[in-house]
Amino acid sequence: MFETAELGQKVSKEAFNERETKLRTALLVAQQELKGADFPVIVLFGGVDGAGKSATAQVLNEWMDPRWITTRAFGEPTQEERERPRYWRFWRELPPRGSIGILLSAWYSQPLLDHVNGGKLDALDSGLDEIEFFESQLAADGALIVKFWMHLGKNAQKKRFKKLEKNVHESWRVTEVDWEHWRRYNDFVAAAERILSRTSTGEAPWHIVEGADARYRSLRVGELLLAALRDRLARPAAPASRPAPSVVAELSSAAEGPSILTGLDLSKKLEDTRYKQELRRWRARLNLAHRKAREKGISTLAVFEGWDAAGKGGAIRRIVSALDVSAARVYPFAAPTDEERAHHYLWRFWRHVPRAGDVALFDRSWYGRVLVERVEGFARKDEWERAYAEINHFERQLAEHGIVLVKCWVHLSPEEQLRRFHEREQTPHKHWKLTDEDWRNRENWDAYEAAVHDMVERTSTGLAPWTLVEGNDKYFTRIKVMKTLTERLEKVV
Amino acid sequence: MFETAELGQKVSKEAFNERETKLRTALLVAQQELKGADFPVIVLFGGVDGAGKSATAQVLNEWMDPRWITTRAFGEPTQEERERPRYWRFWRELPPRGSIGILLSAWYSQPLLDHVNGGKLDALDSGLDEIEFFESQLAADGALIVKFWMHLGKNAQKKRFKKLEKNVHESWRVTEVDWEHWRRYNDFVAAAERILSRTSTGEAPWHIVEGADARYRSLRVGELLLAALRDRLARPAAPASRPAPSVVAELSSAAEGPSILTGLDLSKKLEDTRYKQELRRWRARLNLAHRKAREKGISTLAVFEGWDAAGKGGAIRRIVSALDVSAARVYPFAAPTDEERAHHYLWRFWRHVPRAGDVALFDRSWYGRVLVERVEGFARKDEWERAYAEINHFERQLAEHGIVLVKCWVHLSPEEQLRRFHEREQTPHKHWKLTDEDWRNRENWDAYEAAVHDMVERTSTGLAPWTLVEGNDKYFTRIKVMKTLTERLEKVV
Repeated sequence: MFETAELGQKVSKEAFNERETKLRTALLVAQQELKGADFPVIVLFGGVDGAGKSATAQVLNEWMDPRWITTRAFGEPTQEERERPRYWRFWRELPPRGSIGILLSAWYSQPLLDHVNGGKLDALDSGLDEIEFFESQLAADGALIVKFWMHLGKNAQKKRFKKLEKNVHESWRVTEVDWEHWRRYNDFVAAAERILSRTSTGEAPWHIVEGADARYRSLRVGELLLAALRDRLARPAAPASRPAPSVVAELSSAAEGPSILTGLDLSKKLEDTRYKQELRRWRARLNLAHRKAREKGISTLAVFEGWDAAGKGGAIRRIVSALDVSAARVYPFAAPTDEERAHHYLWRFWRHVPRAGDVALFDRSWYGRVLVERVEGFARKDEWERAYAEINHFERQLAEHGIVLVKCWVHLSPEEQLRRFHEREQTPHKHWKLTDEDWRNRENWDAYEAAVHDMVERTSTGLAPWTLVEGNDKYFTRIKVMKTLTERLEKVV
Repeated sequence: MFETAELGQKVSKEAFNERETKLRTALLVAQQELKGADFPVIVLFGGVDGAGKSATAQVLNEWMDPRWITTRAFGEPTQEERERPRYWRFWRELPPRGSIGILLSAWYSQPLLDHVNGGKLDALDSGLDEIEFFESQLAADGALIVKFWMHLGKNAQKKRFKKLEKNVHESWRVTEVDWEHWRRYNDFVAAAERILSRTSTGEAPWHIVEGADARYRSLRVGELLLAALRDRLARPAAPASRPAPSVVAELSSAAEGPSILTGLDLSKKLEDTRYKQELRRWRARLNLAHRKAREKGISTLAVFEGWDAAGKGGAIRRIVSALDVSAARVYPFAAPTDEERAHHYLWRFWRHVPRAGDVALFDRSWYGRVLVERVEGFARKDEWERAYAEINHFERQLAEHGIVLVKCWVHLSPEEQLRRFHEREQTPHKHWKLTDEDWRNRENWDAYEAAVHDMVERTSTGLAPWTLVEGNDKYFTRIKVMKTLTERLEKVV
């Protein structure tokens, strides 16, 4: 696979100067056009040590306007990073639309190192599955992903290290680890072959670049990047999402029968005295379970979805009252901020993944993608359809990191909702809770119900099950939600 | 000072229930109104251990809508926090406008503990100066700051600890440190008296609340908060900033004479060959200095301001080319995002204070407040006038943390600017660099020059001096900027 990158390609100084001038100008122009475009560019460098990964990243920074480029290398994860799933730190560093993010090694370095250090092939393959999914999800969102594998033959690498070591300004670049890796060159190259052949996809291809000659590799990377940028900029923008003319027509056939919500017994109730007893009981148990979880560094992420006026807020308030306030945080998700809008839709939820021991309570969540965005046509059909897999993948990462993930849908009958709307209208200090949107959403009840059905069917997994909560009685709702959360926590502490 | 908080005040269950219902409703209504207001609310709890700081924070979360409240306690700083100035973590947690942030102990805990543990009175006083400045700066920006000092007499505290220890669900709240502090109760109270009398200001008053009885203290805190909220909501909003009708009239008298820029010798030049030599030389020195700084964990923050087309971007690019890309980051500051706009104007710069060893290059900065915002009237006169002190204070915190702070103003003559504008017009790939705004700014040259003069005069300090860079010759500019940065770094590594 790497033979073509061991040919000893070189570019003379004169040829370089000529091509460089043109290339820089063209890159600057393309970068300028990119600023107004609706996609981000991810430039990833992988490859052999000493083959010029960071030197080339530096050249790109010099050639283009570095104000619209972020460049990140990933060393050992920090404490804050270790407390979150592995991809958290990569999500944090993804560039917003209109800009370029240069990432050094990034998500490729761990699978490679693990494998060379004796990891099983299965583990490598599952690491690569992860990468494939991650990249294809970014690409589907519009990201242009260009990956450069910087290569050196074994002898060329040795020569390179020796040369660097002789230069007083550069010798720091060569470490004992580099020599150690060099001695195991063949293992690395074998693993790299597997990685490249698995992860070079149409939407995120690898370009193998011979790294021995700085002039050659700089031009090659620059020209490949330019071609990719131009190609992408010339492509027509993705069709904007638009309100679906007929929402129900787009719903899955599964939803045509009775929905999963039909089976719920909405007559469930708790009497006042019983409620107070239960509340005391579950508060104490939840408090204890959370204190134990905190000691063990186990985090919790609880998602609350439900009809307008179903009582999510009240349930969240009761949970907060049981927890140490300094470790619990409520995140209400309404319209995204402009910073959030410039990223993949999951980015703003990744931002708030709780640190070890903390509890994050999400009032609405990433499920907006397959609920309101689907029904109102804010997301295109292909977008919300692929969201189920993206969401399952995201949740698996949370669960595998040991985060307790609880998801509640609070259901109520349309009649009870209407009663509560009227109550809100008539109670001065509840007025604000009722908006025109609530009335509009109500008109789309059937479409929403079908969307909820599909959501539960497709995203209720062993690691992250949905709990459907009977919401006609507020007392019952609150206790069931607390009980669900508490019992999930008690299982792991 | 605390006598009135040792009276043994109590509220009966019946009285509590009655007052609670009214209070909750009123708090919810006020909170609702707050959501549309243009100021944040900071509720700070300090006081004696066991007097109900976090319990009361919890009650407030229960009474109001916790979705619009964030509650933070501050334990030992994390690694990421230790790598920044002490107030960094407090700035991060400040609530945006329209919401409530409840902070436990926060910036009060370290001065108190340091003092009780034998710190000098001078140190305490300077810590309190810091606090006063910080709070008054937030208040000037509109924040409503309400501070509660939860108090218990020595015997009441002992009783409280004993009682908690007996309760199986609560015993974890009492630690050995708590008992240790109890034994030194008198020291704590003496220090607290000094702290409260110094930091109870008109804009951020302390309320001393007797903490022995949970019902009493909850109602008292709730009612005080409600009164403060209502009072503030009833006050007319601050007058909006408006374009100054006559900018020059508002300029300081100092600027009426020749400006500080007049003295610069804009004929300074570097020949092509000499430039290339110097560039190589300073790149190597800067690279070495930064590597040493990185090893020592010293961060650098370099601010670039200057006229449009003065060559800031080109200078930044040359600096980036000398640094390890993974440790250097360029931040271009244009209009703030909506998230940033919801905070104090310094918040978005605090966000990007570099971690240990990193270099942050700010293309424009907090000086926008006293330049464009002043000249264009985006900030009111009282806002930009107090900004000089705020900026000096901010920079002092950076410098005292050991951050190397470099500030460059790149100056050029109006004639040279015009020449460059025309050049940009005529060079296709530079077109985008020239905007209508550039032409508009040019018309206000005198007003900007006066603002620059005032800025340098008031913010060039020993810890954070301004470097004025002669910018008519791009080569000269780049080398002077690199030299300035390098020499500053070399002094500390």
